[in-house]
Amino acid sequence: MSELRRDPISGRWVIIAPERGARPRDFTPDPVEDIAPASCPFCEGNERMTPHELFAIRDVGEPDRPGWYVRVVPNKFPALEVEGTVEPREEGLWRAMDGLGAHEVVIESPRHDMDLAFARDEQIMRVIRACENRVEDLRRDRRFRHVFVFRNHRHAAGASVGHPHSQVMAVPVVPEHLRAGLLGASTYFEKHGECIHCRIVADEMAHGQRVIAHNDSFVAICPYASGYAYAATIYPLRHMHDLLLLQPQERADLASILRRLLVGYRTALFNPPYNLVYQIAPVLDAAGNGAEYSRHLSDLFHWHIDITPRLTRTAGFERGTGLYLNPVAPEEAAKTIRGNLP
Amino acid sequence: MSELRRDPISGRWVIIAPERGARPRDFTPDPVEDIAPASCPFCEGNERMTPHELFAIRDVGEPDRPGWYVRVVPNKFPALEVEGTVEPREEGLWRAMDGLGAHEVVIESPRHDMDLAFARDEQIMRVIRACENRVEDLRRDRRFRHVFVFRNHRHAAGASVGHPHSQVMAVPVVPEHLRAGLLGASTYFEKHGECIHCRIVADEMAHGQRVIAHNDSFVAICPYASGYAYAATIYPLRHMHDLLLLQPQERADLASILRRLLVGYRTALFNPPYNLVYQIAPVLDAAGNGAEYSRHLSDLFHWHIDITPRLTRTAGFERGTGLYLNPVAPEEAAKTIRGNLP
Repeated sequence: MSELRRDPISGRWVIIAPERGARPRDFTPDPVEDIAPASCPFCEGNERMTPHELFAIRDVGEPDRPGWYVRVVPNKFPALEVEGTVEPREEGLWRAMDGLGAHEVVIESPRHDMDLAFARDEQIMRVIRACENRVEDLRRDRRFRHVFVFRNHRHAAGASVGHPHSQVMAVPVVPEHLRAGLLGASTYFEKHGECIHCRIVADEMAHGQRVIAHNDSFVAICPYASGYAYAATIYPLRHMHDLLLLQPQERADLASILRRLLVGYRTALFNPPYNLVYQIAPVLDAAGNGAEYSRHLSDLFHWHIDITPRLTRTAGFERGTGLYLNPVAPEEAAKTIRGNLP
Repeated sequence: MSELRRDPISGRWVIIAPERGARPRDFTPDPVEDIAPASCPFCEGNERMTPHELFAIRDVGEPDRPGWYVRVVPNKFPALEVEGTVEPREEGLWRAMDGLGAHEVVIESPRHDMDLAFARDEQIMRVIRACENRVEDLRRDRRFRHVFVFRNHRHAAGASVGHPHSQVMAVPVVPEHLRAGLLGASTYFEKHGECIHCRIVADEMAHGQRVIAHNDSFVAICPYASGYAYAATIYPLRHMHDLLLLQPQERADLASILRRLLVGYRTALFNPPYNLVYQIAPVLDAAGNGAEYSRHLSDLFHWHIDITPRLTRTAGFERGTGLYLNPVAPEEAAKTIRGNLP
């Protein structure tokens, strides 16, 4: 099985997943062709090609049969697996643990070509509800420290199947960016007694130049110090530390702003590859680890969605230095996407 | 000019460089063809096509004329420029400063097709000497906090010109990875009174499984918790916090291990695109900022070279979470490259 390893200097965890079977010749630099709907395991009618479904929203039909709107199945090639323990193995500087986790696929439409940008708000709400269900369910396994949702659009962003889908992953560690984000938010909270995300939302709404769109519950902005061209963040306007606090009207507003943003990207940037990640709260593990974050977690964290189009590969030093170069000012990026909203 | 902006939550700096002129249509996902030697500004005989040279190693000839082995010129499209001040501009949460810095190109050969993997050790030593010269010279400008050297190989790794070259960049901030690395090394030093990199080198040499190659002065390993397939680090065996401490015999040993590693990559992985970064010590700025690192800097830091082939784009969530998935166990990676060394 795969293994989680901790970098002894930075403390960053990585997943070493050799059974995903990569050999030197497997790394193809060229985009592969998408599979045809007839042989697509995510298309309606091909339910037998996936593992048994974990969750579905459907009007008619039995599990693993047609008639669904949204369907969730285990990933056939999971990065992490549910067997294993959270006990770390230590040897000098080296620290590892079993590649314990869960990895699921949220199939967002019965139709192969129905990208989220073309979907109706009602359908996007179903997708969001399915993600909420999986997060809630996976959090019950107290071995996990974090459950998150992400979406890769197009091959260049890591999507191996063209059929629209999101993924849900549960991991027994707090991922690096979330850890750093919680630390920064915590430092600010100690000093100012307020949520730094609420402050950012208020400042951006007042300033306006980096706002792409907003409605009664959400705002989409291009972050001030964004490291990627045209990257955007969707924030709930009210302070809400976790996705599972969404009210029905808020879910409708989220579906609406997300669809508008995705159409804006598609038009402004010619259907760009992108990664979308739900940045939501981590959880305590069975041993109570995580209390350093969660003491004030509901006060200092504010969930949001990050979307980063994958347009540039110009700055090769970024991987090595962590110093990112963004060739598009966020104010210009917001203006461009704003001008292409439906 | 460009601008440096600080993320209010993580403290991470980014370069916003809109004058590099990217418009939505400029982002091409496809590799461009390399330019022909006749129109290559880095080829011998085309010296008039570059800005005036800053440094060269040559037997014969005048500056900006043929007869050189290695030639350093300003980058024609710099990410940062030497005019500007280090005074930050603050407005609420937002903090920015001028896009102050330097960005130079080290042309590694007069010949367009003479990749470093094919060069003689003598020539690689000249390239290293040129980099040392530029680092030493740029550090004299006390507005800079860090000067670093990197190399992008092939278009997929960010190289816009096929002619072999490295780049030198000076920046007025300490880049994120270096900051995190210094913090981790510092924490370890406070606790154990030794350099964590020396400990890693000793453990890896004793363990052996992740060692690719070594000689009297250097060792190349696949790091234990590497986030990228086939990534390698070259460490000096003796404790040495900075590149500028290199002795002549060590420079020869570095050239040798670097060439062998690059040939190993080329053979094992079919000439993969890669990024190579010299991780060297930061500097104090004119106001003395950096003392928090440099008090014990010479004790706790240990310079090294990181090389990351760009083979995978499978894990789209990495950008959003910082949780990296490496499909090749570092022990396997080391074995594969080791089996392909010249």
